[in-house]
Amino acid sequence: MEDSRKHILLMDGPDDKGLIYHVTGVLFRHSLNIIHNDEYVSPSGQFFMRTEFEGTFDTASLLNELKATLPDPGITFRLNPKRKKNIVVLVTKEHHCLGELLIRYAFDELDATILAVVSNYNILQPLVSKFGIPFHYVSHEDKTREEHEEAILRTLAIYEPEFLVLAKYMRVLTAGFVNKFPNRIINIHHSFLPAFIGANPYRQAYERGVKIIGATAHFVNNDLDEGPIIAQNVKDVDHRHTAADMATEGKDVEKIVLSQALKLVFNDRVFIAGNRAIVL
Amino acid sequence: MEDSRKHILLMDGPDDKGLIYHVTGVLFRHSLNIIHNDEYVSPSGQFFMRTEFEGTFDTASLLNELKATLPDPGITFRLNPKRKKNIVVLVTKEHHCLGELLIRYAFDELDATILAVVSNYNILQPLVSKFGIPFHYVSHEDKTREEHEEAILRTLAIYEPEFLVLAKYMRVLTAGFVNKFPNRIINIHHSFLPAFIGANPYRQAYERGVKIIGATAHFVNNDLDEGPIIAQNVKDVDHRHTAADMATEGKDVEKIVLSQALKLVFNDRVFIAGNRAIVL
Amino acid sequence: MEDSRKHILLMDGPDDKGLIYHVTGVLFRHSLNIIHNDEYVSPSGQFFMRTEFEGTFDTASLLNELKATLPDPGITFRLNPKRKKNIVVLVTKEHHCLGELLIRYAFDELDATILAVVSNYNILQPLVSKFGIPFHYVSHEDKTREEHEEAILRTLAIYEPEFLVLAKYMRVLTAGFVNKFPNRIINIHHSFLPAFIGANPYRQAYERGVKIIGATAHFVNNDLDEGPIIAQNVKDVDHRHTAADMATEGKDVEKIVLSQALKLVFNDRVFIAGNRAIVL
Amino acid sequence: MEDSRKHILLMDGPDDKGLIYHVTGVLFRHSLNIIHNDEYVSPSGQFFMRTEFEGTFDTASLLNELKATLPDPGITFRLNPKRKKNIVVLVTKEHHCLGELLIRYAFDELDATILAVVSNYNILQPLVSKFGIPFHYVSHEDKTREEHEEAILRTLAIYEPEFLVLAKYMRVLTAGFVNKFPNRIINIHHSFLPAFIGANPYRQAYERGVKIIGATAHFVNNDLDEGPIIAQNVKDVDHRHTAADMATEGKDVEKIVLSQALKLVFNDRVFIAGNRAIVL
Repeated sequence: MEDSRKHILLMDGPDDKGLIYHVTGVLFRHSLNIIHNDEYVSPSGQFFMRTEFEGTFDTASLLNELKATLPDPGITFRLNPKRKKNIVVLVTKEHHCLGELLIRYAFDELDATILAVVSNYNILQPLVSKFGIPFHYVSHEDKTREEHEEAILRTLAIYEPEFLVLAKYMRVLTAGFVNKFPNRIINIHHSFLPAFIGANPYRQAYERGVKIIGATAHFVNNDLDEGPIIAQNVKDVDHRHTAADMATEGKDVEKIVLSQALKLVFNDRVFIAGNRAIVL
Repeated sequence: MEDSRKHILLMDGPDDKGLIYHVTGVLFRHSLNIIHNDEYVSPSGQFFMRTEFEGTFDTASLLNELKATLPDPGITFRLNPKRKKNIVVLVTKEHHCLGELLIRYAFDELDATILAVVSNYNILQPLVSKFGIPFHYVSHEDKTREEHEEAILRTLAIYEPEFLVLAKYMRVLTAGFVNKFPNRIINIHHSFLPAFIGANPYRQAYERGVKIIGATAHFVNNDLDEGPIIAQNVKDVDHRHTAADMATEGKDVEKIVLSQALKLVFNDRVFIAGNRAIVL
Repeated sequence: MEDSRKHILLMDGPDDKGLIYHVTGVLFRHSLNIIHNDEYVSPSGQFFMRTEFEGTFDTASLLNELKATLPDPGITFRLNPKRKKNIVVLVTKEHHCLGELLIRYAFDELDATILAVVSNYNILQPLVSKFGIPFHYVSHEDKTREEHEEAILRTLAIYEPEFLVLAKYMRVLTAGFVNKFPNRIINIHHSFLPAFIGANPYRQAYERGVKIIGATAHFVNNDLDEGPIIAQNVKDVDHRHTAADMATEGKDVEKIVLSQALKLVFNDRVFIAGNRAIVL
Repeated sequence: MEDSRKHILLMDGPDDKGLIYHVTGVLFRHSLNIIHNDEYVSPSGQFFMRTEFEGTFDTASLLNELKATLPDPGITFRLNPKRKKNIVVLVTKEHHCLGELLIRYAFDELDATILAVVSNYNILQPLVSKFGIPFHYVSHEDKTREEHEEAILRTLAIYEPEFLVLAKYMRVLTAGFVNKFPNRIINIHHSFLPAFIGANPYRQAYERGVKIIGATAHFVNNDLDEGPIIAQNVKDVDHRHTAADMATEGKDVEKIVLSQALKLVFNDRVFIAGNRAIVL
């Protein structure tokens, strides 16, 4: 089947001589035009390459030729057409990250389709409804953590999202839940990780007397706030900032960092290598 | 005795109505001109004020009048003429922070006089000697930590410095040593504290996959890397930076942050409130 | 009449000995508690002071006492209760700054009430209507600049706003219009002023090959993009950013800088001294 | 002749399908290992590629094969062994950039050899002599601009530098002088160009009331402060900074930006495309 959309070829595996040559050769023989190519070899010898190209080609034939050219076993590769990702956003009470995503979505700047918003409070329902997006209030009250997550999973099953975005979702997820979405959950943490892991990072930051606060967007894995970091940013503060002031100032950092990280993920620019995110 | 230099009046104590009024009143009655005045009240009700003024005055009379005016017991105050501080710099092997201080000192930009440099290696002796400053090589080899610190203290006794600057001095100081210089030791740590306390912070930063590195200048107290933070700054990195690259890039941040923090301390702009540095 | 709200006292005029003393004395005698006090003396000898205080007082009596105490003619002063400002937002086609203001307003974070949005296009009407705010479409087509501004003024007359916020309003205002709102119009310009004054700053930035882009929030006066700067911020770019990429990246800077500037203005923290904004 | 050092291959010319493929093919057939590869296609269709590789090869054979493979006329290429560049530094009175370069040079961190320092004042001679580097005092007094430049050129002729670094050299160079060193003169300008071109940028910045100052490292061409920008950085200021304060604060930015730009240039990472610097 012929496909004429822009495509992104993602490869990773052990480094070897000639990898770029072999891959670009396949694309050249298919008369495909490389728009952007970037590659990285880690200190431990892992090769990563992202090639964005355009042109018309037969998918099966291209994949076969790549398989034949690349060392086997060795390099794994994925071929994605450039397209929007389907997401569900999880929130608790705070509106700033959600508001940012909704406005971007409303003006087609998110590189994703927000299928629904899920929250353990109904506080943000009025905001979500302004944008005509389904809002699911799944309270955690009178439920065990597992029961609550089961309820969320039933809601998610309706939408089959490719990614879950935790836009200030303030509950810790169980390993069982996280394992269902490997490298598909993105969280925004309101500190410059690994400083101030866990609860009340701005209170911790105030107590420690830091002169800079930050926010971190990262993939969620089974260790709290320990997944691969996608993007971080910071903001100067001084002794006059109370913990509450830091929280207010930090919101602007949080929402922008989350948006930037999502843009990278939704454009297939992020590889995961152990606990590090490679952004090509 | 009359004094016509610029002076700095530093006050701290429990907040009370009229403190600014009372202090500025004393200065007004002495016909002194306030150049800059800044004050801060902490959330717990502690008042801090720094008043820089000029004019000729009798010190004893001014101090007496302040004592009479301010609540007693309560506000403590110090009156410092604006002048350079006397310091000794401690280093190990790395030159970048020391080089920065030496160049600034050579061109009278440090607000301090470097009385001597002390090191547990003799590597930086050639650099220091270019600037005509005494260099003391106090090796730690074949010495216990206490014996080594005793040797350093004997050297320091020659100079009686007001402040010790740890310009990448890579040994942990004992409580006994630190207690001899309360709030008078300034260290530069090569991470964005409290992230990456302790050894090899750039290695830790690489392993964690952070997207921003930083440096922190702080007072030294008995908890490693836990003293009040005076200044911090950061720099973007990405997955291409090895731990060694981060260390190289970080040097530029470290030396500038240390210099900025010293400028604040040497100009009597830093109060300490518990574990927080108030910069007025 | 007694007033027990928080108040802000703003003073400016020629510097003189004892100004802080005299003003804090009046507040002390009225048993008012200073929450925050900040003052600045410009190199040319102009004194600025902003004092935020709380307590119950009789306005007429306080004002009379201040008048009696301060040099006359000389210091002018304003006494404002802490309260939200009434604003009208002007936009053209771009949504990002407006969206930011609407979300903040919806969650009571703007320190202002948005009375209405006025635009020369009707593109943003659907966004504004989500938030239940009046939207006035005042087309400039088939109108002279003066006729168009007359039409806008008629709309503004309904609302009598204290401030006009140009949230990417892309038309140059005439001196006649600007003069009706002295120091009451705030604009966001999409460059790091004074670089790239005028049209298409991102195109100019691309052509010049800059490595950093920025945004500037400023008061509007009769010289295009020349009014006092309230806040600026920047973002790194590189040669890969097209002018369009810079525009996209720049939006995040623009909306945050505008919000920060408005927070300062709406909290009575900004003085204007010639072409410089003093932020206390 | 065989060469086993690390090498850098630099190519630029009109974009064409298969360029990466053809070049990496030549390197693959010579069994050379690509350490890092980066390429860029400008919006106008210009292709730039920088390939750093290692391995032993015969230079003539490699160059011939590249010539045979690449479109002709079209892509131009240069093959540089990785090595330090020879430079002469020009200064006037300010020490901060020069001091930075000297310290880096003394500890082998400059990626260049400083052959000599030339100045139109003898103020910095004592600093330079500490580092055992020739210092040439070439006064401009009683000389026309052309005569002065002739005298400098006679000094430069002794050293035959590959690059001239203007480390706060405060005189405008004539076109005649600049044309002798095309794309080989790097200047640090003490503003965030294109803001504040020309003399006294900090004075201009103060007058304009900016909230951020900056510094720009750029190649020198015949238009004052108009050459391709290599690196820029900025620093927050506020209304309290006088022009002199800005100058003091700015020095830290200037010296770091200059060093960063030199590192890029000396590692063959900078291409020039019209008035834009492409950094690969």
